[in-house]
Amino acid sequence: MTPAELTELRRQLAEITDLQALGALMFWDQNTMMPPGGAAARADMADTLQRTLHARETAPELGRLLDALEPWAAGEDPDSDDVRLVHWARRDFEKSVRVPADLAAEITRAKAVGLQAWTEALAASDYSRFRDALARHVELRHAYIGCFEGHAHPYDVLLDDFEPGLTTAELRPMFAELREALVPLVAATGDPDQPRNDGVFGGPFAVDAQRAAVLELLDSVGYDPDHWRLDPSVHPFAQSLAPTDVRLTTKYDESDYAVALYSVLHEFGHGLYEASVDPALARTTLAEPVSLGVHESQSRLWENVVGRSRPFCAFLLPQLRRQFPGAFDALDTTSLYRAVNTVQPSLIRIEADETTYNLHIILRFELELALIEGTLEIDDVPDAWNDAVARLFGLEVPSDAEGVLQDTHWGGGLIGYFPTYTIGNLMASQLWERIEADVPDVWERIEAGDFAALREWLRVNIHRHGRKLYPRELLGRVTGEELRVEPFVTYLRAKLEDAGLLAPA
Amino acid sequence: MTPAELTELRRQLAEITDLQALGALMFWDQNTMMPPGGAAARADMADTLQRTLHARETAPELGRLLDALEPWAAGEDPDSDDVRLVHWARRDFEKSVRVPADLAAEITRAKAVGLQAWTEALAASDYSRFRDALARHVELRHAYIGCFEGHAHPYDVLLDDFEPGLTTAELRPMFAELREALVPLVAATGDPDQPRNDGVFGGPFAVDAQRAAVLELLDSVGYDPDHWRLDPSVHPFAQSLAPTDVRLTTKYDESDYAVALYSVLHEFGHGLYEASVDPALARTTLAEPVSLGVHESQSRLWENVVGRSRPFCAFLLPQLRRQFPGAFDALDTTSLYRAVNTVQPSLIRIEADETTYNLHIILRFELELALIEGTLEIDDVPDAWNDAVARLFGLEVPSDAEGVLQDTHWGGGLIGYFPTYTIGNLMASQLWERIEADVPDVWERIEAGDFAALREWLRVNIHRHGRKLYPRELLGRVTGEELRVEPFVTYLRAKLEDAGLLAPA
Repeated sequence: MTPAELTELRRQLAEITDLQALGALMFWDQNTMMPPGGAAARADMADTLQRTLHARETAPELGRLLDALEPWAAGEDPDSDDVRLVHWARRDFEKSVRVPADLAAEITRAKAVGLQAWTEALAASDYSRFRDALARHVELRHAYIGCFEGHAHPYDVLLDDFEPGLTTAELRPMFAELREALVPLVAATGDPDQPRNDGVFGGPFAVDAQRAAVLELLDSVGYDPDHWRLDPSVHPFAQSLAPTDVRLTTKYDESDYAVALYSVLHEFGHGLYEASVDPALARTTLAEPVSLGVHESQSRLWENVVGRSRPFCAFLLPQLRRQFPGAFDALDTTSLYRAVNTVQPSLIRIEADETTYNLHIILRFELELALIEGTLEIDDVPDAWNDAVARLFGLEVPSDAEGVLQDTHWGGGLIGYFPTYTIGNLMASQLWERIEADVPDVWERIEAGDFAALREWLRVNIHRHGRKLYPRELLGRVTGEELRVEPFVTYLRAKLEDAGLLAPA
Repeated sequence: MTPAELTELRRQLAEITDLQALGALMFWDQNTMMPPGGAAARADMADTLQRTLHARETAPELGRLLDALEPWAAGEDPDSDDVRLVHWARRDFEKSVRVPADLAAEITRAKAVGLQAWTEALAASDYSRFRDALARHVELRHAYIGCFEGHAHPYDVLLDDFEPGLTTAELRPMFAELREALVPLVAATGDPDQPRNDGVFGGPFAVDAQRAAVLELLDSVGYDPDHWRLDPSVHPFAQSLAPTDVRLTTKYDESDYAVALYSVLHEFGHGLYEASVDPALARTTLAEPVSLGVHESQSRLWENVVGRSRPFCAFLLPQLRRQFPGAFDALDTTSLYRAVNTVQPSLIRIEADETTYNLHIILRFELELALIEGTLEIDDVPDAWNDAVARLFGLEVPSDAEGVLQDTHWGGGLIGYFPTYTIGNLMASQLWERIEADVPDVWERIEAGDFAALREWLRVNIHRHGRKLYPRELLGRVTGEELRVEPFVTYLRAKLEDAGLLAPA
């Protein structure tokens, strides 16, 4: 029998979920539809919604319901939806109430101030204009860490907000192992002067033709027009208001179709995860992806593991030839496959290829860790950045804008977020080993344009669980493993060899 | 000195305004952007927002703030923003708290049930499927009326929700006077068999060309792309999230450009009102149009008084010729002017021309009044409808779908709403007399495509006040008059004569 408190908890969480969905709608609208002059009013609306949500998330009656339910939950199946719901609701509640309202307000204010300072500093390519804001963020992160107990490393608290359960002690050796593998691999394969993707997507291609092309591609992989949208935005993203209302965005660069093509595959991976959560979890705390790392494993799987594979290139090339008459006639599958896997050491993370990408993340992780541990001074961050770029990529950083200021994350005080990109890459390779075992003809299917079996595997093994299982549990149940570096490195080396970009070892 | 309670009241009203703006965003998105499969989740979100808003609007602390402020307000300038704010906040608060939560919930439920029943009844063209829902609506309207005191007629309570301060005692003789003037006018000028607008907008015109054309027209009249959007929707509407974020929609019919053209002018009038409220009133209860009647006076003014005038036709025709090469070459200004003022008695309100339109409203008003007074039985509504159509238009109603079921309003329980359309038409004519006196060259300016002086007059005299002044005060201050029928009839007769559609009296 369902306790009355559980019914009431579900009711309250459903309303909280609805208000969060309103926030998602606001975010989506702001980045796709809002007239530019609407920004100030939108900031007020976002502020009010945030306050309204915070009041609901920290309501004492929520705490009382959870207290009342915990003895009951202890006697139920620990894998049941209800028990997991109580667990995650408790986790969210604790995270909310442990941070004093004054500190939460300070953090919100510092985020706005920091983003403004970062925007100006980036425009002027001058770190000194951002320095104070970053110092404040680090200070507030320490105050935030101080609200929590029982962690082995202060960075664990920050990491836990994005990747529940993962620790610095686990991450540090993995990232070191990855660095040791990637630096020589990039040195062996990379050429900073060659055009990205061998220049095969150079066009120029009209935006309308690109939009039609990515919609056809989305239709092939599993986009559902009854429940999805695709719009342009400055930075591509995926956002869902509900599993039945998923919104992707992309960016069209007339001189590089790869921007739209691969960002659409990436965001499709995110969207498919959000669309495929078990409908029984809808309007609960469990109806969302469990972590940024798992989320990113889905986007990277579609963008890189699938999208830059030889079978996918064989599937894609005839579509490209039809969509852009003449432009891809001279290309064969092997050249396309090679093109989308070329390695260019470069300064900008969001433009990086699959091989160099994780080095950008490792750089940020190492600097974040040093900042939080107090072994790196705020004033020394640009030098530390530039040294790391020289060490990892063999490149010189000509300006702060192309170096330490390039990402928005630190502007908003997000520390502990960057590692999730690499976690996603690692996890995607581990999952793919399992997929190849479970769906032996997966590559033949992909080459034939049949993605249904892959989608179904992902739905059953990953997506449907939503937030029921911790990332560690999810990965463990599917692969029997902890997060590991080796499958990713093996996958990458094999692909670079197969594409003729790396001499066999 | 500002009392602390006023600061707190303003803070609370600002948050309520923000939450209302979220509702506006949801409505806009639902009708323009939402994937169809998102509807169920959207209903949940709307429900939660409604409950959240209701809790804020009826919060006892809001009542205490208002109680504390009323003695203070009594000693201040009654025309000041602050005093008016307290007045309207009190009015809203009383309207919210006087309706018991159970009744409010019943009304919400009946609205959903009624709209569903209406949709099915309309599809089947069968009033009997809607009959019970309408009976329930009338019953609930009586319960709602019972929550309020001090009104001379029960219908006054319903009217007051849409047109604050107007009474049935005023409206009944005005609508009778209008009916007496219009029935013979329609009989003298109307021809149910001629094509709408003389068929001059028949096209076919491609949607892209229509969109470009209405955007050019909007640019002429005063659309601001930094703060406005235009999107397609099934039913055109205007919705603002803030004066700085105004969203118009229109509908494109390839075989009738007049649908987009005149709906865009109509919605522009609504949007301009919302965009031009005094910025000092932003995020307060006063930052919105004061009534549906005044709102409609603005849309009708642009759509009909301006948009169907001879000078506007002279301005428009060269644009049309450029926008749709060849299609308007044979037309001259007088023929266009005549075409857009032709009179066709017809069955469907939303397709009605300016001359017959108000008869559709009078019909609904008379039936609503009889339903509320208890002189019309629910089962007799279709017969009463059909009799009225014969009496007012000389037409026979072939089906419920083309008669009593055609509008959504009663489906949702909206009774007392229809009269505001006609109030808007009457008011627009009264305002126009004043505009012609204050801006003597207004027609020359319109013909020259210069709408700035007209916009400024509307801003200063109407828009900027937002909800500060009651419709009666607003009209009185601008025209020195109460709402009157005669200016509209005079205006209409003069136009029909000028266009050669009516022999001079």
